[in-house]
Amino acid sequence: MLKRSPLAPSHFPALPKVDGVRVAGLSAGLKKGKKRDLFVADLRAGTTIAGKFTTSQCPSAPVDWCRQAIGRGKARAIIVNSGNANAFTGKVGDRTVAETVKAAVRHFNCRKADVFLASTGVIGEPLAPEVIGKKLPHAIKALKANGWSDAADAIRTTDTFSKGACRETEIDGAPVRIVGIAKGSGMIAPDMATMLSFIFTNAKIPSPVLQKLLDHGTSRSFNSISVDSDTSTSDTVLLAATGVACHKPVSGSSQAHLRHFRQALTDVMIDLATQVVRDGEGATKFITIDVTGAASVRAAKCIGFAIANSPLVKTAIAGEDANWGRIVMAVGKAGEKADRDKLSISMGGVPITKNGWLVDGYDEAPVQKHLKGQDVTIEVDVGVGTGKARVWTCDLTHGYISINADYRS
Amino acid sequence: MLKRSPLAPSHFPALPKVDGVRVAGLSAGLKKGKKRDLFVADLRAGTTIAGKFTTSQCPSAPVDWCRQAIGRGKARAIIVNSGNANAFTGKVGDRTVAETVKAAVRHFNCRKADVFLASTGVIGEPLAPEVIGKKLPHAIKALKANGWSDAADAIRTTDTFSKGACRETEIDGAPVRIVGIAKGSGMIAPDMATMLSFIFTNAKIPSPVLQKLLDHGTSRSFNSISVDSDTSTSDTVLLAATGVACHKPVSGSSQAHLRHFRQALTDVMIDLATQVVRDGEGATKFITIDVTGAASVRAAKCIGFAIANSPLVKTAIAGEDANWGRIVMAVGKAGEKADRDKLSISMGGVPITKNGWLVDGYDEAPVQKHLKGQDVTIEVDVGVGTGKARVWTCDLTHGYISINADYRS
Repeated sequence: MLKRSPLAPSHFPALPKVDGVRVAGLSAGLKKGKKRDLFVADLRAGTTIAGKFTTSQCPSAPVDWCRQAIGRGKARAIIVNSGNANAFTGKVGDRTVAETVKAAVRHFNCRKADVFLASTGVIGEPLAPEVIGKKLPHAIKALKANGWSDAADAIRTTDTFSKGACRETEIDGAPVRIVGIAKGSGMIAPDMATMLSFIFTNAKIPSPVLQKLLDHGTSRSFNSISVDSDTSTSDTVLLAATGVACHKPVSGSSQAHLRHFRQALTDVMIDLATQVVRDGEGATKFITIDVTGAASVRAAKCIGFAIANSPLVKTAIAGEDANWGRIVMAVGKAGEKADRDKLSISMGGVPITKNGWLVDGYDEAPVQKHLKGQDVTIEVDVGVGTGKARVWTCDLTHGYISINADYRS
Repeated sequence: MLKRSPLAPSHFPALPKVDGVRVAGLSAGLKKGKKRDLFVADLRAGTTIAGKFTTSQCPSAPVDWCRQAIGRGKARAIIVNSGNANAFTGKVGDRTVAETVKAAVRHFNCRKADVFLASTGVIGEPLAPEVIGKKLPHAIKALKANGWSDAADAIRTTDTFSKGACRETEIDGAPVRIVGIAKGSGMIAPDMATMLSFIFTNAKIPSPVLQKLLDHGTSRSFNSISVDSDTSTSDTVLLAATGVACHKPVSGSSQAHLRHFRQALTDVMIDLATQVVRDGEGATKFITIDVTGAASVRAAKCIGFAIANSPLVKTAIAGEDANWGRIVMAVGKAGEKADRDKLSISMGGVPITKNGWLVDGYDEAPVQKHLKGQDVTIEVDVGVGTGKARVWTCDLTHGYISINADYRS
């Protein structure tokens, strides 16, 4: 049993029900010791869906399936297992997907393309084709409107805590709710963080609009975090809208009456994404990096990730060492335009360098004090433009090595 | 005192003298305890030179200097200090460079552009402008034709052993010698590995040809290794040719009579580069990765580095865990074309996967046995073309965290 991350929130949030959604989390015997490893969501007929998937060239069989199915934009069921990634499992992997979908079609009385799948866990071990389908009747009996805690538990692998978030908002004055769960703690990097997330709302939004809202939120959340720069074969984020809420029809993602919803959705996603970072394998520090003054937003994000992914920066912060020279190194290696002689670096809001050298009378004491806390901030201005971005990461510790040097064995 | 890497060679090689080169390694008081921290090479008048430098956007002051000076292609002196990188040191950094060059011009009776500098160590701490110049007279007295061991010692930072290599070869039947030293163990990544290397030959080669030979060798050696994916502000490789050897004039790098020389130079560079990997911070395994079947050489190298830089692959090998699923993940995230269903992976020459799944009757025992050794090989064929590349790396261990969580303090 992994020790709970020291950066974990004190408890799993009380998540409200979302009209049109019922969820269950139970054991299908894929994990040892009857731990929960199967999550099923039952979605009201007419639910629209949007998805973002790993950019890996070697995606898992369920990702292949979802990419096909997402085109229709409708969903009735989401079925997710942990304990086995069903990735790099050859023809057996495809058969497992086909059998699971077939069973779901029978039980949910829906089309094949209404069924969405995800798997997470060890790569390369076959997942028996019938095992999930056989368990579906039990899962369906267990469905509850408020089953979030079991659901979030069932999708965990090396996660040390369950992750959930919600926001209440409105569209045209009609109350709307967004609830999401997520998993992830290793193989986390941009495009997507190695993770799964499932988000549900009672809003009534056509799938093309839903997709745009999801894209907007993902780039500011799941694609702005990194634990270890590794990208999984299975990354999946699904956003389902049941359409039960009573508001005027929505036709475009930038419509004024969607402004609050778009922000609330992005907030839920940032909440979940930063929980993933807080559960980064071996993490003892949660690090927020703000890059400003870059040539573009893209350049700022690239520099942010160069800092976030630098083993030398991450180990320095683990050691509570105000070694800002490593931040200079990371900015330099990003390959994006930066003016060494205008570079400003702060930590915890304390200016360290300005215009390419130490600030006058620099005193390391307040920076060291800041580094002793659990939440560390790094602010970098690279002095060439107005592009800015924020990324999140965690430190690199002995804990990461211990977890990953014998995860499978 | 850092413990000698378990992957270190048993001893520093006996390096022969190179006509026209004298070297010294001594203490200038930059490192604690009178350790050697100053390396000086005296080069015969007429020596030609070529160089490769960091791609960092925040290069050190000495790198800025060398980039300017290399244009003339001539050298009389190379002056290198360890203990301070003279990087991100503002105007003081430039003054230190100017003062050091001025002192060298006086002592070597040469032009400014004949003087080459490098500095390695902590970033962002000022290096007093006069300190190296003052020590030059002592260094000049200490110059010896066979001072390689002291020289290699003087450029070390967190290196646990001194690195040197040599090859004897011929041009047109005339005996030619190549001797090199290097340093590096952290901040090692492509474009350049974070490192310094100085290579000397008695061949007579015009500087444009020398530069082409150096480019050829660098891409196959120093730019094919990675310890931790970090790139320093100071990376420098210099190749000096004293021209004492008696052979026909050389006019192009691909001339037939240069074939043996080119290979010998590349061999020296690979020898030095792999020594750097063997001294990777905390390394307990030396890993050679061969990628074949890629769309191009560039794509093969990119996939090789995605594997070499993956913390999850590196920790699995540290744990002697045959977790080949992480190799699939790394191939996938490289972003280069790969055919998941044709992907073949071997370790230690033992086929593990073929055509996208486990080989029939796969037995993990011989792979596990291979992983228990110090030298690990990974062979990957991505099934789309004929591009191939070899890269070298090391594992990621508790030792890396220990060294880097308190290097500066």
